Amino acid sequence: MKKIAVLTSGGDAPGMNAAIRAAVRRAVYHGMQIFGVYHGYDGLIQGDIQEMSLGSVGDIIHRGGTILYSARSQEFRTDEGQQKAVEQLRKHGIEGLIVIGGDGSFRGAQKLTQKGFPTIGIPGTIDNDIPCTDFTIGFDTALNTIVEAIDKIRDTATSHERTYIIEVMGRDAGDLALWAGLAAGAESIIIPEEEQDMDDIIERLHAGYRRGKKHSIIIVAEGVGSASVYADKIKERTGWETRVTVLGHIQRGGSPTAFDRMLASRMGAAAVDLLLEGKADRMVGIQNNQIVDIDFDEALSQKHQLDLSIYQLARSLSI
Amino acid sequence: MKKIAVLTSGGDAPGMNAAIRAAVRRAVYHGMQIFGVYHGYDGLIQGDIQEMSLGSVGDIIHRGGTILYSARSQEFRTDEGQQKAVEQLRKHGIEGLIVIGGDGSFRGAQKLTQKGFPTIGIPGTIDNDIPCTDFTIGFDTALNTIVEAIDKIRDTATSHERTYIIEVMGRDAGDLALWAGLAAGAESIIIPEEEQDMDDIIERLHAGYRRGKKHSIIIVAEGVGSASVYADKIKERTGWETRVTVLGHIQRGGSPTAFDRMLASRMGAAAVDLLLEGKADRMVGIQNNQIVDIDFDEALSQKHQLDLSIYQLARSLSI
Amino acid sequence: MKKIAVLTSGGDAPGMNAAIRAAVRRAVYHGMQIFGVYHGYDGLIQGDIQEMSLGSVGDIIHRGGTILYSARSQEFRTDEGQQKAVEQLRKHGIEGLIVIGGDGSFRGAQKLTQKGFPTIGIPGTIDNDIPCTDFTIGFDTALNTIVEAIDKIRDTATSHERTYIIEVMGRDAGDLALWAGLAAGAESIIIPEEEQDMDDIIERLHAGYRRGKKHSIIIVAEGVGSASVYADKIKERTGWETRVTVLGHIQRGGSPTAFDRMLASRMGAAAVDLLLEGKADRMVGIQNNQIVDIDFDEALSQKHQLDLSIYQLARSLSI
Amino acid sequence: MKKIAVLTSGGDAPGMNAAIRAAVRRAVYHGMQIFGVYHGYDGLIQGDIQEMSLGSVGDIIHRGGTILYSARSQEFRTDEGQQKAVEQLRKHGIEGLIVIGGDGSFRGAQKLTQKGFPTIGIPGTIDNDIPCTDFTIGFDTALNTIVEAIDKIRDTATSHERTYIIEVMGRDAGDLALWAGLAAGAESIIIPEEEQDMDDIIERLHAGYRRGKKHSIIIVAEGVGSASVYADKIKERTGWETRVTVLGHIQRGGSPTAFDRMLASRMGAAAVDLLLEGKADRMVGIQNNQIVDIDFDEALSQKHQLDLSIYQLARSLSI
Repeated sequence: MKKIAVLTSGGDAPGMNAAIRAAVRRAVYHGMQIFGVYHGYDGLIQGDIQEMSLGSVGDIIHRGGTILYSARSQEFRTDEGQQKAVEQLRKHGIEGLIVIGGDGSFRGAQKLTQKGFPTIGIPGTIDNDIPCTDFTIGFDTALNTIVEAIDKIRDTATSHERTYIIEVMGRDAGDLALWAGLAAGAESIIIPEEEQDMDDIIERLHAGYRRGKKHSIIIVAEGVGSASVYADKIKERTGWETRVTVLGHIQRGGSPTAFDRMLASRMGAAAVDLLLEGKADRMVGIQNNQIVDIDFDEALSQKHQLDLSIYQLARSLSI
Repeated sequence: MKKIAVLTSGGDAPGMNAAIRAAVRRAVYHGMQIFGVYHGYDGLIQGDIQEMSLGSVGDIIHRGGTILYSARSQEFRTDEGQQKAVEQLRKHGIEGLIVIGGDGSFRGAQKLTQKGFPTIGIPGTIDNDIPCTDFTIGFDTALNTIVEAIDKIRDTATSHERTYIIEVMGRDAGDLALWAGLAAGAESIIIPEEEQDMDDIIERLHAGYRRGKKHSIIIVAEGVGSASVYADKIKERTGWETRVTVLGHIQRGGSPTAFDRMLASRMGAAAVDLLLEGKADRMVGIQNNQIVDIDFDEALSQKHQLDLSIYQLARSLSI
Repeated sequence: MKKIAVLTSGGDAPGMNAAIRAAVRRAVYHGMQIFGVYHGYDGLIQGDIQEMSLGSVGDIIHRGGTILYSARSQEFRTDEGQQKAVEQLRKHGIEGLIVIGGDGSFRGAQKLTQKGFPTIGIPGTIDNDIPCTDFTIGFDTALNTIVEAIDKIRDTATSHERTYIIEVMGRDAGDLALWAGLAAGAESIIIPEEEQDMDDIIERLHAGYRRGKKHSIIIVAEGVGSASVYADKIKERTGWETRVTVLGHIQRGGSPTAFDRMLASRMGAAAVDLLLEGKADRMVGIQNNQIVDIDFDEALSQKHQLDLSIYQLARSLSI
Repeated sequence: MKKIAVLTSGGDAPGMNAAIRAAVRRAVYHGMQIFGVYHGYDGLIQGDIQEMSLGSVGDIIHRGGTILYSARSQEFRTDEGQQKAVEQLRKHGIEGLIVIGGDGSFRGAQKLTQKGFPTIGIPGTIDNDIPCTDFTIGFDTALNTIVEAIDKIRDTATSHERTYIIEVMGRDAGDLALWAGLAAGAESIIIPEEEQDMDDIIERLHAGYRRGKKHSIIIVAEGVGSASVYADKIKERTGWETRVTVLGHIQRGGSPTAFDRMLASRMGAAAVDLLLEGKADRMVGIQNNQIVDIDFDEALSQKHQLDLSIYQLARSLSI
């Protein structure tokens, strides 16, 4: 394999640039040519493809976002769109493709492999909701962004002795909410993986107040519903005014943490190595600190598991 | 004057602790005794008052929030409440009071002075909406918090080539929105002080797109209305999907910047000096980098002026 | 076991407070009493011991340093000192001790166990140089501090097109240098675990310059010698002026990252659980994302292993 | 005036990119053409000049360093070199030049004006050592970088109860040391503008210890001598071990603060406006929050004045 390409797809995540950089540099290290596909699968169909060099990934390891841009593509969902994509790749003499993104992006990559075009996936999403990998690129950065935000809100919560409800990202996976809640010392954490009784939340608030705690922080993963709904319920049950903050899009950006840059560098290089070894239809993952690779079918048929022992730990520490 | 007290009132602002620290240390430097009043005017009425020492303000200069807590007080709005407050101060032998807060807090301080109790105000609010001072304590920190948040959102705005609308604090004053918008290179800034035509906003978006700019950042001060209303209007007029983020309570917290710590240290010390000189019924301010003091009546009868030349500058640079 | 104690010893590390907090809260959760020993083994000998409560660990999860202070103790190295320490613990009715620190601190803990007093160690050191645990508390924070510092230096290195040599902590372990070097995209990384020929460093610099790279960053772990020695050697061999920065003590401080707070929370709780289960003479560790416990003898007889595949990866990416 | 150019010279400072951006956008706003000169005066002599556009300054407002690079030039010190520089500018049809840098850079700019070529200077240096302007671009960012570093060191100073001496930049001006010392609550601040007796430093240390303060932070501006010399003196006089950190090059880098971006934006735009008005041989400054312009001769004949009242304030607060 002499010519490969890389694209980013789906929601952007901090560290995607570090993964692109690693893929490009590793390819050059192996004497290969590497191309960047701009604007995800949409750009692939349009042939928005340019050769990359060591220089084109200079000074990007620390930048949020993705220099290759990302976009949704309706056309790529069709067989015709996928056909066009393969043709564009072949037109440039490209023999393998690295796709950095989430599970939706991997399903797209699989379609190309089914059409005979080798692909390797790299998990890049802040949600940490990809099965078969302990961590995804961007999770650690988003987590730290959230924790820093909660630290700031705690300043004001403490000063005003009020309860704050903070909504964080995570549609299906409560990892961000759970880890951030534990790391920031939140009083309650509400996640999709664990039903939490409103009675329990209220009881914890009351217990805190009885012990003299005048402020509380409650973290809600967006997947379980809006923070303002919880605020209303608490007001209804206790009469207490709470304050709501929806952290929103700041969670996706920022300079990647050391951990995310490491993970991205290891995964980007590994993806190139896999293509060079003739492997395809697989995603790169990290398990027990080791880089591994897993068949797309196997990975996509599973469900990401949150470590519920962390949830129990958080509860025991937020008494 | 041998015994004074300090309290924080209204919304908390980063740097309030640095001001408390400076007041305490300056008082000790002058050989005075200084007391902390906890929970604002409410605590004053309740007599929640404790003597402070060099040790009680150790290791707080860099902390957000206020170690004296803040609270709203209905009772203090009544003549009876104010009377109780004065009695509590006299009971402790306190001869002068420093109030750190916004204009509402200063009106409270004035009531005490009208009852014969000397007060000095220090402007502490992130909004920078106090007349007769170029800056308030907390403004610079909140500004940097906002700018860092916009920088993060820009990562994702650039990667996805979308328009983001970001709502920041500022009910009557557009300073946070304006300065943050200029410092973060926002494409449009919507503030209470300057009517902005929807046509103009749309035209600027279109002009940007014609020049190849695929993403835009629009900053909205909360005082002009909700960011989501602007998102709806833009969608109606252009058909474009935008993303909305309401920065919320993270704007109040965080470790104060060097500027806010400086300002707070200078103002805290100046307030003590003023009481020592027998002055009262005045607020401390900073004008042209110099610490000044202004009669409460004079200050409260004026309106904070935003520098509109900055607005014009921002427009000329965001073409 | 009804009464336990916790102390911090050796160099401080960000996250120690989060570990103390977790130990205290977990003990209270189990219905135990827990005491804080101030000033490490020295304070233990002096009986500087106070009971802790939920309140005494409020608002510390995000703080650098250690609220229990740390100190070196000559006296504790003697049998007599150790005897006094045990007596102090017994005097307070304490039945088990948690020691947060490095391998030297664990050797101290072992002495107590040999005198019949149960101890559990928690690895807290920024250097990541403890065997039998993948990570130590403080490593991730120090790593991010270093990476942010290198990012700043790169700004100026790029602008001035110069070579910068940055010395980071790590006497025996090159983990900080290696991980930071990879995460920050350093051109060369010099660590104790891998002999690096001066010829190789020079050749890499020359190769970079031939490809048009006008600036380079070289990371040196303090264990291999002073950065200024390398600067002199490079000047001697190439005639190039380089700039040296020794990062120093900023590497030990700062608010802990989410990862370090998580790790500290898990380890602090696990240490309490181990004492409760009647275990002693063991350290807590994390292996493959799972909390484990290892016999002190086993742990201390081994040597921390740096993952040399990371070193090879870094080299391949910094071509 | 239809064609102008901009260059950066001397040590880089955070915010230089924001100034370049503002100059470019303001020029385009006025319908002018603007060129970037790369590598300072050296590049000017070599003709390293390229036209800039709105696109070439996209996404740089938040970046440290300078996209135009900076370099020292021996040749430019000669009359011949200056002659070549003017010729290069004329060859491109350029009629005015904006120079962003320190006083040395302004002396260079003056030489060009003396050869009949209009120049305007913008003060860009972290040291704040330029006369006739209250602030220089980069000062606020460097100040915050230093304060954050001291905050981190204080964590470890507090935990270990030791004295730390921190050396910061500032050859002739103590502004960084003084402001950082006040903002971080340092116990002693040693600056070139104010002779400080060793007896006084020692007495302050002793006084602190008598009051129970177990750690101290001493800030030294590099202009008064090396921090390690002070460490030796303290050891000699007190027997106490101190720890020394030289902050070094991290002080020059980093994303500019909101204040520096504002200042740079205002100054960059003002410089273009001045050229358009036919003015030359002047530097832009900020005085009392207003943008002003001052004759180079006047500015360069003066000496920057540090506000000694701040020094007195710092002393009174660090009792």
